[in-house]
Amino acid sequence: MTTTRILDVDAVHSILDKTGSSEFLLMLIGRLRTAFESYDPMVVSSIDRTGFHYTRPDLGLVEWMPTMEAGRHVAVKTVGYHPTNPSQRSTPSVLSSTAIYDTTTGGLTALVESTLLTALRTGAASALASETLSIADATTVGVVGCGAQAVTQLHALSLVRPITRVIAYDTDLSNAKSLASRIAFLGLDVEVVDGPGRDHLVDCSDILITATSVDPGAGPVVPDTGTQRPWLHVNAVGADFMAKVEIPRSQLVRSLVIPDVTAQCLIEGESQQLEADQLGPDLPTMVESASEYETYRDRQTVFDSTGWAVEDLVVAELALDIAGELGLGTDTQFQASPPDPYDPYS
Amino acid sequence: MTTTRILDVDAVHSILDKTGSSEFLLMLIGRLRTAFESYDPMVVSSIDRTGFHYTRPDLGLVEWMPTMEAGRHVAVKTVGYHPTNPSQRSTPSVLSSTAIYDTTTGGLTALVESTLLTALRTGAASALASETLSIADATTVGVVGCGAQAVTQLHALSLVRPITRVIAYDTDLSNAKSLASRIAFLGLDVEVVDGPGRDHLVDCSDILITATSVDPGAGPVVPDTGTQRPWLHVNAVGADFMAKVEIPRSQLVRSLVIPDVTAQCLIEGESQQLEADQLGPDLPTMVESASEYETYRDRQTVFDSTGWAVEDLVVAELALDIAGELGLGTDTQFQASPPDPYDPYS
Repeated sequence: MTTTRILDVDAVHSILDKTGSSEFLLMLIGRLRTAFESYDPMVVSSIDRTGFHYTRPDLGLVEWMPTMEAGRHVAVKTVGYHPTNPSQRSTPSVLSSTAIYDTTTGGLTALVESTLLTALRTGAASALASETLSIADATTVGVVGCGAQAVTQLHALSLVRPITRVIAYDTDLSNAKSLASRIAFLGLDVEVVDGPGRDHLVDCSDILITATSVDPGAGPVVPDTGTQRPWLHVNAVGADFMAKVEIPRSQLVRSLVIPDVTAQCLIEGESQQLEADQLGPDLPTMVESASEYETYRDRQTVFDSTGWAVEDLVVAELALDIAGELGLGTDTQFQASPPDPYDPYS
Repeated sequence: MTTTRILDVDAVHSILDKTGSSEFLLMLIGRLRTAFESYDPMVVSSIDRTGFHYTRPDLGLVEWMPTMEAGRHVAVKTVGYHPTNPSQRSTPSVLSSTAIYDTTTGGLTALVESTLLTALRTGAASALASETLSIADATTVGVVGCGAQAVTQLHALSLVRPITRVIAYDTDLSNAKSLASRIAFLGLDVEVVDGPGRDHLVDCSDILITATSVDPGAGPVVPDTGTQRPWLHVNAVGADFMAKVEIPRSQLVRSLVIPDVTAQCLIEGESQQLEADQLGPDLPTMVESASEYETYRDRQTVFDSTGWAVEDLVVAELALDIAGELGLGTDTQFQASPPDPYDPYS
């Protein structure tokens, strides 16, 4: 009989509260590093993200990101992205859930609310990229786009670099202003700048995070200030739509660009502004040879983050493991077998 | 705030019990007919079924079938198919669930256990095909493969044709023998035959149902007995895998073949034995012009059923509508929004 463990939003928050969000992120960074280092496409395989993109009632999408660990399970994360959610519906712009099916019966073994977990794994992936590619004494982080992702990006980054200062910009000034209170637990100085202040923001940053909901075609969202900061590392998180880009092409051309999933980034990441032969290795390959890529710390680099299904499997498994240890979540007989498997009415 | 309505296996069975399974099937047949007749690909769109096929620990697959009703919602049905489930794990060979996301927020609005519902919509689709293509006074149905699908196929068929007699065959004789008790509520005479008896089975049938778990490459599962029954209509339900076929190619060539989803049937249905130009119209097109195709009642016809995502949306909506009326199912705050949509930790 298949039991389905459900981790709803309350259960996920309880996991974070009881574990400590920093401890959870550190465990997640560690598990992602291990998953990347040991990545074997014969064992873990993904299917390209697909979904429906639409313009009514508003611009949005529902997509799914499937991955299989051979002989064990299939995980399908589904993501809704609706940029007007926060301003119009008091709802996060990214909503997601992960369904896990065991490959013995095909039954649904878990359903995990993944909105916060997605923000955390995206932060953890940026932390892994930054750990290798940013200067070791990075203290100042520029943030363009101060929504939910900015919080987890800064949190994860603060665990791998001695960050003390944040310079924040958002097209909605109130978002930039409220960031300080949302990341108060990190104890950082936060300076807010307006549109023209973005030159100053980039020129002072050791690490730049872009995590905007810029409309397709309306980017980039930051100026290219050249080689003023020759060591500038960028975590470009927002691009996830055709024609949605955040970083000037000239800066990408000059930088080592690390896509998380090369084929996907060429379609919907910053990398859609480049040709395949202008890209560096993907994130798992770089992490596998991290010491080799530390030579890029003094040079300009860009992590092109579009999200990888394997990251979703790793974070869902971590949440389920902790839930199991702490007795959190709800076990349901969602899909209990009938007494007679040949009689659907039984 | 998004509320997620969960219909687990108990809720689905309660819907059937309270509605009456025959009444439910009749409503479903009606809704499917309407959905097919009014089908507009600009309003309802599907994405080709994809998934993982694997051979360890056993032959199986997990696949998903996504469909969108523009401006309203996206439904993703996930199906696990594991032919050894019933004999080795007392579990249905097909397990499935349908997740529904609203296209305003991208949130998960419903999760519906769909194992029984899938068997019902598959039966209802066959009933629609048979209503047009089989002789009006069809009384004898041959069934090859006497598992869970056979029950709902016969049930749905009995609602559109004056069936009195079933001739049953299964490679596992005990399955064929137990069919009579599983369909006792239909009040039909059931005759069981062995392997050589399949000639007799086909030669006596007005309608033939094939719903087996035959291994890929091992079919067909019935003999071609020629034009002994010039009006024979076949509902071929089992083929859903590359190289898995049930019907002899010679019979397909001689018959009007109606695929449910042409492109999909050419890959994994009976139609993989034919070229595209050897097929008739798809099921929705045929239903739209049903009276025109009734001229085929006296000729041999085959409905190639592989399952269409739109059918899954229709049956899930019917179940949710009835659940709403009867107060069944559980409303959960699975994905409740944080107080501050910009603060994932809030």
